[in-house]
Amino acid sequence: MAADAQQNSQEQEVIMKAPLLNNYAEQYRRELLNNVLPFWLRHSKDEKNGGYFTCLERDGRVFDTDKFIWLQGREVWCFSYMYNMVSPKEEWRQMALHGAGFLEKYGRDANGNWYFSLTAEGRPLTQAHNIFSDCFAAMAFAALDKIAPEDRYKEIAVNTFNNILQRKDNWKGIYNKTYPGTRPLKGFSLPMILCNLSIELEHLLGAQQVDALVPDVIHEVMDVFYQPNHGLILENVYPDGSFSNSFEGRLLNPGHAIEAMWFIMDLGKRRQDPALIRKACDILLHTLEYGWDKEHGGIFYFMDILGHPPQQLEWDQKLWWVHMETLVALAKGYELTGEVRCLQWFEKVHQYTWSHFRDEQYGEWYGYLNRKGEPLLSLKGGKWKGCFHVPRALYQVWKTWDRIME
Amino acid sequence: MAADAQQNSQEQEVIMKAPLLNNYAEQYRRELLNNVLPFWLRHSKDEKNGGYFTCLERDGRVFDTDKFIWLQGREVWCFSYMYNMVSPKEEWRQMALHGAGFLEKYGRDANGNWYFSLTAEGRPLTQAHNIFSDCFAAMAFAALDKIAPEDRYKEIAVNTFNNILQRKDNWKGIYNKTYPGTRPLKGFSLPMILCNLSIELEHLLGAQQVDALVPDVIHEVMDVFYQPNHGLILENVYPDGSFSNSFEGRLLNPGHAIEAMWFIMDLGKRRQDPALIRKACDILLHTLEYGWDKEHGGIFYFMDILGHPPQQLEWDQKLWWVHMETLVALAKGYELTGEVRCLQWFEKVHQYTWSHFRDEQYGEWYGYLNRKGEPLLSLKGGKWKGCFHVPRALYQVWKTWDRIME
Repeated sequence: MAADAQQNSQEQEVIMKAPLLNNYAEQYRRELLNNVLPFWLRHSKDEKNGGYFTCLERDGRVFDTDKFIWLQGREVWCFSYMYNMVSPKEEWRQMALHGAGFLEKYGRDANGNWYFSLTAEGRPLTQAHNIFSDCFAAMAFAALDKIAPEDRYKEIAVNTFNNILQRKDNWKGIYNKTYPGTRPLKGFSLPMILCNLSIELEHLLGAQQVDALVPDVIHEVMDVFYQPNHGLILENVYPDGSFSNSFEGRLLNPGHAIEAMWFIMDLGKRRQDPALIRKACDILLHTLEYGWDKEHGGIFYFMDILGHPPQQLEWDQKLWWVHMETLVALAKGYELTGEVRCLQWFEKVHQYTWSHFRDEQYGEWYGYLNRKGEPLLSLKGGKWKGCFHVPRALYQVWKTWDRIME
Repeated sequence: MAADAQQNSQEQEVIMKAPLLNNYAEQYRRELLNNVLPFWLRHSKDEKNGGYFTCLERDGRVFDTDKFIWLQGREVWCFSYMYNMVSPKEEWRQMALHGAGFLEKYGRDANGNWYFSLTAEGRPLTQAHNIFSDCFAAMAFAALDKIAPEDRYKEIAVNTFNNILQRKDNWKGIYNKTYPGTRPLKGFSLPMILCNLSIELEHLLGAQQVDALVPDVIHEVMDVFYQPNHGLILENVYPDGSFSNSFEGRLLNPGHAIEAMWFIMDLGKRRQDPALIRKACDILLHTLEYGWDKEHGGIFYFMDILGHPPQQLEWDQKLWWVHMETLVALAKGYELTGEVRCLQWFEKVHQYTWSHFRDEQYGEWYGYLNRKGEPLLSLKGGKWKGCFHVPRALYQVWKTWDRIME
């Protein structure tokens, strides 16, 4: 436990009873190992063509066979990571290799850019227009290389990463529909993911390259996209970080900002920078207070920083990844700062998330709830939900509570 | 009244009491003239820059100043049309000219393609990637030419129309992200709108060119996209009309299909083709029965023809245009076939629509409701909702009931 937590010892003691009663570490560990990973092992393997099915109905039945590169990469990463970090189960390594073989064979175009989607058999459906396909492919092969080292895995990871850095300032390339110059906004997604990606690739890039990259990424997230007057992180800003009063400029994505805050806390830990950790923790808490639905509970998907109607019709829905990432950020915030509000919020978000997203009957977790917290779609996986946020968060929260309780 | 309606006279008589009690024609006329058109006249004119504001809060306050070409064109069309068809009010003609001046000056790129959006001042924001901008611009200048004839309005309308025909088979052009050949689906939107557009431009194209275009459009809608085994119209099919078992291929948009059915009925009336009208009416009724939310009322936005989870998170929302277009289609279906189910459904959809979408307090109509029928967004206009579906439908239903009651 961090030193700050020793303060206000009376208040602290009362609150500490909750985690002692609720053995969070054990709860999250068990869910990961007994429910979530087995669900994907059982239902997502495409034995015939290689790769994974990710469009899974409530009970795991495949309802669509298209292969989305984001989710193929993320599942390779997940099983590699769990093999490396949790337990060297051969079944997990084989699962990771199974997806990687498909990705390696079919995933890239002639320029080495990753397609967005493929048919079940691996024929390209959607061009390489989305740089996040490349991000998750790089993550996949970097993680795989840790458990099944191969020069070609290293090469794929590093080449893809360098390609991302080259494309990053104009990654939409020919598919960019924005008229140049009129309103040159830049988006938060890429700096945010580079934050995480550079750490994931550290064993390949070397600490020196990562150390050179990290300050710029931290600056982008914490100075450029963060708006001190609101205490919030915007999704799109002018190059100098100034505000654009437009649909894109007013957009908040609380889950996105909160997820970034645990990436930043990880970087703060790495750099032994308690001020950075404290700032990330404050932004996390402020975003959560702002994004929490006071009427029905849960965290909104999209908001407008001036309170205008957002253009996203799904703005009031409650998404699995938003809540999972928030649990990770709160656990880490509590671990690293001892801030009691992190603990109080963790308990509240934990209650909401487990009681609304978890499917008692068929296992795994729902992805999409309506504002009132009822399932909006019955699926366990689709075009965007795969084997990633749920298991990663379960792992992160489990390990964080283990450290807190040490 | 059509001859068919004379059958089952007893049942008919009972049902006819409702419209006699409810003077629909008067109700729709009054709403158009006393509520909806005045709302847009009052709130949407940009006096400084020209053009219209369409992003209007519940009470009409402007919350965003960007100009979307779809909505600029549609509002020019609307005021031109009302001047032409309802009453030659100078205020309406001026309002149409006001938007047309802005469109003419700023709307097109160097190739004569229409941008998707502009700033308030008319600087391009989004490239000309969306052919529906061109469709609504052509409609606008064709309608304007009827009330303020000018060679340059004719020229803009005809050149834009010819440009649409040239681009129609690959209208996304360089912005097309689909990998060529793997799954060559075509979409329903363009044939559907061409259906309506060719009639709108008849005074410029001549009856001969329209007569030459129409059979192909009818064939596309009624043979290629219509799936006889389901009795439903798909949004995306293979070139020969066959089914693709994919997210795009399984997609139903009931409002879209229903809107197309009244375009087809108009064409059937023009061609004096009762079999075509009957078929359109049957498809309308079947789509409505399929798309109606039996639990909460209203028509779903998106569905999957195999009952799988759709990829659109807004699938269960109730949208204004879906319900307005359905009222038009039902009124026309009843007028042209006398089919009693059209009347029964009209009453039901009328009840739902007026009680849920209409804003008693501030005028005009809400655009977006959640599944339970509560406003999801407070706006009266935005990026997609402008001065179009509500007034057009109010006019169409008014006039149709006038003819029915003659």
